[in-house]
Amino acid sequence: MVGGGQLARMTHQAAVSLGIRLRVLSAGPADSAAQVCPDLRVGDHRSLADLREFAEGCDVLTFDHEHVPGEHVAALQHAGVTVRPGAQALRHTQDKLVMRERLVGLGLPCPRYRAVRTLADVRSFAARHGWPVVLKAISGGYDGRGVWVCGSPAQAADVLAHGIPLFAEEHVRFRRELAALVARSPHGQGAAFPVVQTVQRDGVCHEVLAPAPELDPNRAARVAGLALRIAAELGVTGLLAVELFETGDGLLVNELAMRPHNSGHWTIEGARTSQFEQHLRAVTDLPLGSPRLAAPKIALANVFGGDGRDPRARLAHVMAADPAAKIHLYGKAPRPGRKIGHVTVLGDASDEMAALRARAVRAASYLRSGPDEDQ
Amino acid sequence: MVGGGQLARMTHQAAVSLGIRLRVLSAGPADSAAQVCPDLRVGDHRSLADLREFAEGCDVLTFDHEHVPGEHVAALQHAGVTVRPGAQALRHTQDKLVMRERLVGLGLPCPRYRAVRTLADVRSFAARHGWPVVLKAISGGYDGRGVWVCGSPAQAADVLAHGIPLFAEEHVRFRRELAALVARSPHGQGAAFPVVQTVQRDGVCHEVLAPAPELDPNRAARVAGLALRIAAELGVTGLLAVELFETGDGLLVNELAMRPHNSGHWTIEGARTSQFEQHLRAVTDLPLGSPRLAAPKIALANVFGGDGRDPRARLAHVMAADPAAKIHLYGKAPRPGRKIGHVTVLGDASDEMAALRARAVRAASYLRSGPDEDQ
Repeated sequence: MVGGGQLARMTHQAAVSLGIRLRVLSAGPADSAAQVCPDLRVGDHRSLADLREFAEGCDVLTFDHEHVPGEHVAALQHAGVTVRPGAQALRHTQDKLVMRERLVGLGLPCPRYRAVRTLADVRSFAARHGWPVVLKAISGGYDGRGVWVCGSPAQAADVLAHGIPLFAEEHVRFRRELAALVARSPHGQGAAFPVVQTVQRDGVCHEVLAPAPELDPNRAARVAGLALRIAAELGVTGLLAVELFETGDGLLVNELAMRPHNSGHWTIEGARTSQFEQHLRAVTDLPLGSPRLAAPKIALANVFGGDGRDPRARLAHVMAADPAAKIHLYGKAPRPGRKIGHVTVLGDASDEMAALRARAVRAASYLRSGPDEDQ
Repeated sequence: MVGGGQLARMTHQAAVSLGIRLRVLSAGPADSAAQVCPDLRVGDHRSLADLREFAEGCDVLTFDHEHVPGEHVAALQHAGVTVRPGAQALRHTQDKLVMRERLVGLGLPCPRYRAVRTLADVRSFAARHGWPVVLKAISGGYDGRGVWVCGSPAQAADVLAHGIPLFAEEHVRFRRELAALVARSPHGQGAAFPVVQTVQRDGVCHEVLAPAPELDPNRAARVAGLALRIAAELGVTGLLAVELFETGDGLLVNELAMRPHNSGHWTIEGARTSQFEQHLRAVTDLPLGSPRLAAPKIALANVFGGDGRDPRARLAHVMAADPAAKIHLYGKAPRPGRKIGHVTVLGDASDEMAALRARAVRAASYLRSGPDEDQ
């Protein structure tokens, strides 16, 4: 697995059970996965030489993030390395304009968009679809950001000034955000986890509710089917996460990711097969595991870095307050705003989702900042 | 954790979630835990020097097995190392006669027993309690065995010929075997997992059924209470497994173990807190996790080495046949009869335990010997 973040860390936990030896390419031994996985290779995921050396002796290469240059992925495949997902599929997560064009070509509902180069382009887009306008980096981003909601031409001008390729998207007034997570194996087998609701703030996922509360079963089936279809059409091997907007009218596809995804961390305890095990099964071409729920209702809250204190110093309080909360810490320095863990709370059919959410948020909030602050 | 077997391997998986860095003392990098845990120290658990060096920088020392000499554990504690469980408690798993005497002293029901040195001792024991007589090594064993069921004086003479300290125990005609697993923290907090039934053959655990089917709730509560009492009386910190016989008349305590236990592997998916997480919480003096069931019925079957083939070569079949079976492989060479993994199957209230057992056994059997043989 290229990348030593928390996704590789949790993939290692799943690999241990299956007797699969995970090798990790990471920037250094302090990385989240590097702390827990013995087969660590230090290297740069942007260096083809490092990638080639890393791939030597691996049965299959997969990814913890989208940042390996597409041409490197293609070069590895050309050299005979088994890479899953492959360059053809990954292109759609590395070039968002390609992704949009492909999804629209498949007849799938997407927000309206157009490539923009100048402020005049943005103004003309806004004239049709109104302000605010969402500007998105076509690939990568600027200073860690790739999405800007611009309320005015002046704000759009600031974003254009970064000089990176952008496209404009209508600002969708959604009711809520949903995420569909599916796996597809090289054999073509597919499996869909139950559709979840995500709660995002400033483009960052704070909570996940599984299954998405009060989602119409027909709509849930349609969303899962849509994600399976995208996986098949794009030739994805491994996991595919599809983030969607649910609006008054229906659904719009927002983003794609081809790896374990934050919206799927609840599966560790909440599904018969965790997304990490499922990704391993898919990329090693083993039969996929059952994606069914292991509990009727599940709430997850992400833990962010807060006051810089090690969240482990706060475990005692959280564990005493809620002995059934499942705590996951990523071994990352608790810098403010950084995702450093998550908490999952599992409920029975009779539990109120609001109560499960409150428990998860309370635990995550305490791990972030102790008793002094509400989240 | 001293010892690099599968218990340390699975403890590492649990430690990763809590952000706890597990260090393992093991015989070499091929050991089950050594394959998956980066903080490996190679050394001999029988060497006090190796243990001292290993303990340097650890917050707390704990064990994957009972084979660290008691005097070394005491010496480490004397030198200021925090060891959990400590030498006083561990004594009861290292000297079975001490254990028996202590349990009987507490008024707990045990099989009748006496220390034996000569065949005449065995004969006189048999004259009162009948043949067969169970001979047990007081500590350790001989050639990997520590329990012999002797049907005749000739068989007893063969065991006596090993020249190791032994005691005799009545051969209990039990209805079934039960196991209680509890945790106790240095603060004195206790938590009991639901009592399970174990299915043993030739003294080796083959299956675990959780919770123990049709166990009278009062008896279940009594068993859990008895295990919590033993943990408190013996000053256990960490996990305590109590193996019992259920007879027509009641219960008899058979064995104790003070570490994660094969009878508790079902907790990985089947309880809100796995036994490995619970052990970590207990030995690091964190509040204990909820031991409640995560599924109404659970069956586990151990995977043994069979024809020498790598069980990973058989994963595809088992996964295709049963997508919800949870497979755990320990990375051990599949020598015949060696425990190399386990399979857990989780059911709903409406599932028949017999059907769950059949699924677990089928998967484990296939991993052992493929399609050619029944277990």
